[in-house]
Amino acid sequence: MRNKLTIGLFGFGCVGNGLYEVLNQSGLLDAEIKRIVVKNPNKERKIGKENFSYDKSDILLDPQINVVVELIDDANAAYLIVSEALKRGKHVVTANKKMLAENLEELVQLAKDNKVSLLYEASVGGSIPIIRNLEEYYNNDSLSGISGIVNGTTNYILTQTNYGKDYDTALAEAQELGFAESDPTLDVEGFDPKFKLVLLIKHAFGLNLKPEQLFNYGIRNIKEQDVRYATEKGLRIKLFARAQKNGNELYGFVAPHFIDSKNTSYNIDNEFNAVSVEALFSDKQLFLGKGAGAYPTASAVLSDISALQYDYAYEYKKSAGSNDNLEFTEDFFLKIYIGSEFIEAIQEIPFYSIDEVFQSKGYNFQTGWVKFSELRQFNFNALKDLFFAILPDAFLGEEEFGVKKEENLFLQVFNS
Amino acid sequence: MRNKLTIGLFGFGCVGNGLYEVLNQSGLLDAEIKRIVVKNPNKERKIGKENFSYDKSDILLDPQINVVVELIDDANAAYLIVSEALKRGKHVVTANKKMLAENLEELVQLAKDNKVSLLYEASVGGSIPIIRNLEEYYNNDSLSGISGIVNGTTNYILTQTNYGKDYDTALAEAQELGFAESDPTLDVEGFDPKFKLVLLIKHAFGLNLKPEQLFNYGIRNIKEQDVRYATEKGLRIKLFARAQKNGNELYGFVAPHFIDSKNTSYNIDNEFNAVSVEALFSDKQLFLGKGAGAYPTASAVLSDISALQYDYAYEYKKSAGSNDNLEFTEDFFLKIYIGSEFIEAIQEIPFYSIDEVFQSKGYNFQTGWVKFSELRQFNFNALKDLFFAILPDAFLGEEEFGVKKEENLFLQVFNS
Repeated sequence: MRNKLTIGLFGFGCVGNGLYEVLNQSGLLDAEIKRIVVKNPNKERKIGKENFSYDKSDILLDPQINVVVELIDDANAAYLIVSEALKRGKHVVTANKKMLAENLEELVQLAKDNKVSLLYEASVGGSIPIIRNLEEYYNNDSLSGISGIVNGTTNYILTQTNYGKDYDTALAEAQELGFAESDPTLDVEGFDPKFKLVLLIKHAFGLNLKPEQLFNYGIRNIKEQDVRYATEKGLRIKLFARAQKNGNELYGFVAPHFIDSKNTSYNIDNEFNAVSVEALFSDKQLFLGKGAGAYPTASAVLSDISALQYDYAYEYKKSAGSNDNLEFTEDFFLKIYIGSEFIEAIQEIPFYSIDEVFQSKGYNFQTGWVKFSELRQFNFNALKDLFFAILPDAFLGEEEFGVKKEENLFLQVFNS
Repeated sequence: MRNKLTIGLFGFGCVGNGLYEVLNQSGLLDAEIKRIVVKNPNKERKIGKENFSYDKSDILLDPQINVVVELIDDANAAYLIVSEALKRGKHVVTANKKMLAENLEELVQLAKDNKVSLLYEASVGGSIPIIRNLEEYYNNDSLSGISGIVNGTTNYILTQTNYGKDYDTALAEAQELGFAESDPTLDVEGFDPKFKLVLLIKHAFGLNLKPEQLFNYGIRNIKEQDVRYATEKGLRIKLFARAQKNGNELYGFVAPHFIDSKNTSYNIDNEFNAVSVEALFSDKQLFLGKGAGAYPTASAVLSDISALQYDYAYEYKKSAGSNDNLEFTEDFFLKIYIGSEFIEAIQEIPFYSIDEVFQSKGYNFQTGWVKFSELRQFNFNALKDLFFAILPDAFLGEEEFGVKKEENLFLQVFNS
């Protein structure tokens, strides 16, 4: 009934090491790591040299090994390993969101063609079983939206800036604690949550998107005044990866949001992750857990390995069927806040209607409605002089926005 | 690949009605309600009389019907329906926690013997997919504890008393909003969460417990002063159903808890439910969602029906294997608060060590360590003069407590 699993492990960082301890020492599963391939022969590791090899063929060409667990950093090298393993009829468990997001459609097809499983619960939300729940539990329910705090580094920084620290201090702390890499670009510019969003959209809505199609804006340009604006209004700033269905259209992007205390994510602090799922009948669900760290990640990898004992594979039920007509769109309006030292920087951004304007020496802000397709033309991560965040109002499609626009004619004139 | 499901529905309250709309009108699933059996022919309903019948044989003896969905209130009648349906080779989906908790072992065996599925996600936590996650996702990980706010009525009342309302006002409100029944005993004395705890323990730890084995204490005796004590210390009061593993022993009970703001359940307010799962490697996970209401419940029922299309059945993996030596125990110590107008009422409760004593005209309280096996001898729900709640300290096994006890000798003497 249960399959005996013989594992080849690529990478032996914290997660790999944790996994090794659990699998080979706890006897919890009928699974054994037969071989571990690492890149650097000279690095000191917790177990003896005899356990390692440095040639990926030692795993990929070993017919006894039926499961490849890939836990290396380099996305390109990971792609070569994973695609080769699938072609050779081995199941794959991986946590590499960048590699997955960039090659998802091809890898899913490869797994299907070779009748093996490709599982990657650890790639999104650490120990939160969100992929599995989207696959298994929400398959009947019409999902209307999904939004997640899926990057522990930026959530840690935002929590600390909320408590009064400045961005640089909070980032340095995150690096010291091991949450942030020495080059934090992928995290603080919102790339990492975007890769995860590609995976979430595939499992929630069945759409195949490429990372390039999704807009990502991070938090590296946040200033003290932006945090103060939020705090004064009882709001908090969270970086969300989100996708929202509106009829046959799907919106999706990564950007900072101001949220109020009614939002279930208001108290998700520091390195915690949380994914909120909105469904037609079940209302809002929140899944909360530690998003980063060796053990939460190893735990998700372990769950995937465990599922392989029972021949588990993702079925991608939503990729066929009811979402056939769903189209990804950037034609919608949303309400934002933009703050900057320079009025001119704000005025470069086209607003369709303006709700508030504040000007002073050294700090200005403006709130109002913008068209997303125009907003996304700007490379905001590179615009150091300003910071924008999405306000807690509903999105509006083009038609709905027509009405809204008229209401604010006065302010438009005021601003022109 | 997918099974065609022909459903017989028992009960047509809010949930049944919601389910009917979704199934027969949305076309989301390849499932059809063929017949609805209700008790009262004269009640007005949203759809025509021709849809109903009043004899349960119309469903149970219909060979075309392969799924019975049981959504009636009466636990005894539900048991007869469910057991008969299973015997006749029909899958069963039910939300009746009382009926399930009282007959779980027998019903699980019946389902197994007749090679059909018995699914009941809607019985715990409304739309939160906790049973499925315990079954499917945490099967490899050594679960160490589970605790849940699984009763919306009492959580609503506790939220409102926290905001300054008294118990009776809050209860009346809950009744007006439809959260609480006219006889709220099962909710406010902690029976309802106890039935759910029986199910959670079965899926989390594999133990078969009877409701009578589990201690349940609710919130009906809470007083303003108890709330004030909590508020002054930055604590909130939540009614938890919880089970905790300590080595080969398992503790489990329902009781009010004082929790601090670090607890992930601190902000779970009003009718929301939340279940927290503690596992060896994945750390703490929280599942949050609406615990009550027609749609959240219907959504969970729908997920079960959907799963039947793919021949899904609970495997009860934890009932065999690693938890074989696990024993349910009441021999442990825990730290509690007891408040009362009457000192004598407090002094009746045997404390092993006392941390704080406060006495005044009209209100007294005491905190300290008690032995659970002694505590549970009292019928606290009937002791209107006092209220107790568990403090946010760790539990202690008998051995560990030995040390703790010595430390507090002074206070023991003081109290004697």
